[in-house]
Amino acid sequence: MTQPTLQPDFEGDFLLGGGAPFALESGSALPQASLHYAIYGKLNEARDNAILVCHALTGSARVADWWPDLFRDGHPLDVEKHCVLGINVLGSCYGSTGPQSVNPATGKRYGADFPVVSIRDIVRAQAELIEHLGIRQLRAVLGGSIGGMQALQWAVDYPERVAGCFSVGAAPLSAMGLALNHLQRENIRLDPAWLGGNYDPAAQPTRGLALARGLATCSYKSSALFTERFGRNPDRSGEDPRQSHAARYDVAGYLDYQGKIFNERFDANSYLVISRTMDTFDLARGHVSEADALKRIRARVLVVGISSDWLFPPADVHALAERIQNANAVCNYIELHSNHGHDAFLAEASNMRPLIEYIVQSGAPHAQEKDCVGCGA
Amino acid sequence: MTQPTLQPDFEGDFLLGGGAPFALESGSALPQASLHYAIYGKLNEARDNAILVCHALTGSARVADWWPDLFRDGHPLDVEKHCVLGINVLGSCYGSTGPQSVNPATGKRYGADFPVVSIRDIVRAQAELIEHLGIRQLRAVLGGSIGGMQALQWAVDYPERVAGCFSVGAAPLSAMGLALNHLQRENIRLDPAWLGGNYDPAAQPTRGLALARGLATCSYKSSALFTERFGRNPDRSGEDPRQSHAARYDVAGYLDYQGKIFNERFDANSYLVISRTMDTFDLARGHVSEADALKRIRARVLVVGISSDWLFPPADVHALAERIQNANAVCNYIELHSNHGHDAFLAEASNMRPLIEYIVQSGAPHAQEKDCVGCGA
Repeated sequence: MTQPTLQPDFEGDFLLGGGAPFALESGSALPQASLHYAIYGKLNEARDNAILVCHALTGSARVADWWPDLFRDGHPLDVEKHCVLGINVLGSCYGSTGPQSVNPATGKRYGADFPVVSIRDIVRAQAELIEHLGIRQLRAVLGGSIGGMQALQWAVDYPERVAGCFSVGAAPLSAMGLALNHLQRENIRLDPAWLGGNYDPAAQPTRGLALARGLATCSYKSSALFTERFGRNPDRSGEDPRQSHAARYDVAGYLDYQGKIFNERFDANSYLVISRTMDTFDLARGHVSEADALKRIRARVLVVGISSDWLFPPADVHALAERIQNANAVCNYIELHSNHGHDAFLAEASNMRPLIEYIVQSGAPHAQEKDCVGCGA
Repeated sequence: MTQPTLQPDFEGDFLLGGGAPFALESGSALPQASLHYAIYGKLNEARDNAILVCHALTGSARVADWWPDLFRDGHPLDVEKHCVLGINVLGSCYGSTGPQSVNPATGKRYGADFPVVSIRDIVRAQAELIEHLGIRQLRAVLGGSIGGMQALQWAVDYPERVAGCFSVGAAPLSAMGLALNHLQRENIRLDPAWLGGNYDPAAQPTRGLALARGLATCSYKSSALFTERFGRNPDRSGEDPRQSHAARYDVAGYLDYQGKIFNERFDANSYLVISRTMDTFDLARGHVSEADALKRIRARVLVVGISSDWLFPPADVHALAERIQNANAVCNYIELHSNHGHDAFLAEASNMRPLIEYIVQSGAPHAQEKDCVGCGA
């Protein structure tokens, strides 16, 4: 029995800097920018019950839409007790300022002129909203993939404002990941309907975006899962790939379908912008070095790798966790066993409920505890 | 010091069936088909010193051009002693009948009308040429990737005509491999210059073919190799991917370059046709079952998996070797340790010299030896 999707108690928009330009790490600025956000539950009087959930590449502020398992039976996200916040990232097509927003400087949509945005920019914008909401410290910041990047960036850039940090399937992207992201973006640009980024939103480059999504889907899943689900079966419509070039194997039909439904909910230019934030994530940015950045962390951190993730291999995630530990932060690493690949943070979210509960319940580490970890005690 | 490339002692073309239509497994037929082939060394009088080397997706009949290491110091391929044959596959753009050939039935190039060809078709055509050359038994058939598929197909379909079979990085393609091949072909078809396959060869769909080659390159290499070579470095031309959407990381610049040089030497329609042969390879074809097919093998077989190959994972290659062993054939499996991925059969060919030497020197197994293997003795 499927439960009905939990609706936010509030959904609205926040104008950054009162409408002043929002400067970006790339050197550009958005003349005006706003964030779309959603709230589940209520802030308590002390405003210390807020949990920020950061979404991944194609997610939205409506956390319960894409991570419903975390709300089930009020565990780990109990909206009677906690105030759960979702904030759509800059560059997205789910309400915050993005490529399809009108640039007030020109009166036209940004399109391909939308500047390069970083995870750090996204988090800085979020921090402004969190401050506006009167929240001095977030009980926890959670996320997977680029959501996990945001959670870590929060812990580094706003150490006093985060008690707990949960990041799954996130690390600096490897060369193979950079390669696959590049090819995905090129798929979009190859589609003649892209028109240099200046397409009408009603006629976006669907073929290129579908191919990008297809390749991304390969990188989000695992070979074992594909073998289990599709094997070498021909497409279920009855095509015979041994006879005709147009006929497909089942896995190809699946990818095409994933691409098709993706076109109905996502914008190609947003894809270009947010995919790039995954590439450029680097906790060293704005600090002397990564080690220097990590030393700032005051939150209790839980870093989770996924055994079959080949976009963010567990070895890379583990290595990042070790660098955080070496920087003297309270950080645990756990590897989630799954054959779902990177996507396990969504497909098998249930398995992470105790892990997130640990972060939500624990609060910030005591100073003494912090000192003990990292010195090997 | 680089040695000059060994030149073939003979290079020519062979008309299949004396110009009669060549029937294909897909149910179609080529109205007329010829094979381009190269010979290094000379057939001895007994015509029992021939070694057929089958090329991979983008290779050619000129074996020494792409597998020079195997000829170095006459080891394992000694052209004073052996007669080494290379035959370009049907569908290729290196001389055999392919999509850019003129269809005698229409007087126009085949283009996208070129039919689906299988590994089995390719091998049957080769067998006709081998017969024409008066060779009753090949001392060995060797190959990697779809070359390895051809070698195995030879051992199954022409058991009495193959003494030794060497196959590296080949197995029935997994669902992930089918997915990646599908996306590559879609890349080509997405390029407006593809024109439904009817482009002028001088104006082929370079962007789509380059993207296909880029994705294929990812599948041929390993994540570890990319990390070692490119890491997270920006493109060597000085681009800054943190500032501009057009700027690339080094690995992206590398893929673009690979795509660019590939365009100068390969045809997009040939790519579509030969990529499909990789998909459809299945030794059961034309036989009651795979087990039934494998029972036909009389050659000594050496199957090699590559530790970091994720297009043909060593587990899949090993499993195929075990099925061959279970079918009572003399078959050994060896795993080559390399971080070069699938490409190791070319990039680290030197490491395979003793393995190929074993197959070239051994000849067919004795009946008794054959009986012993498989019964666990």
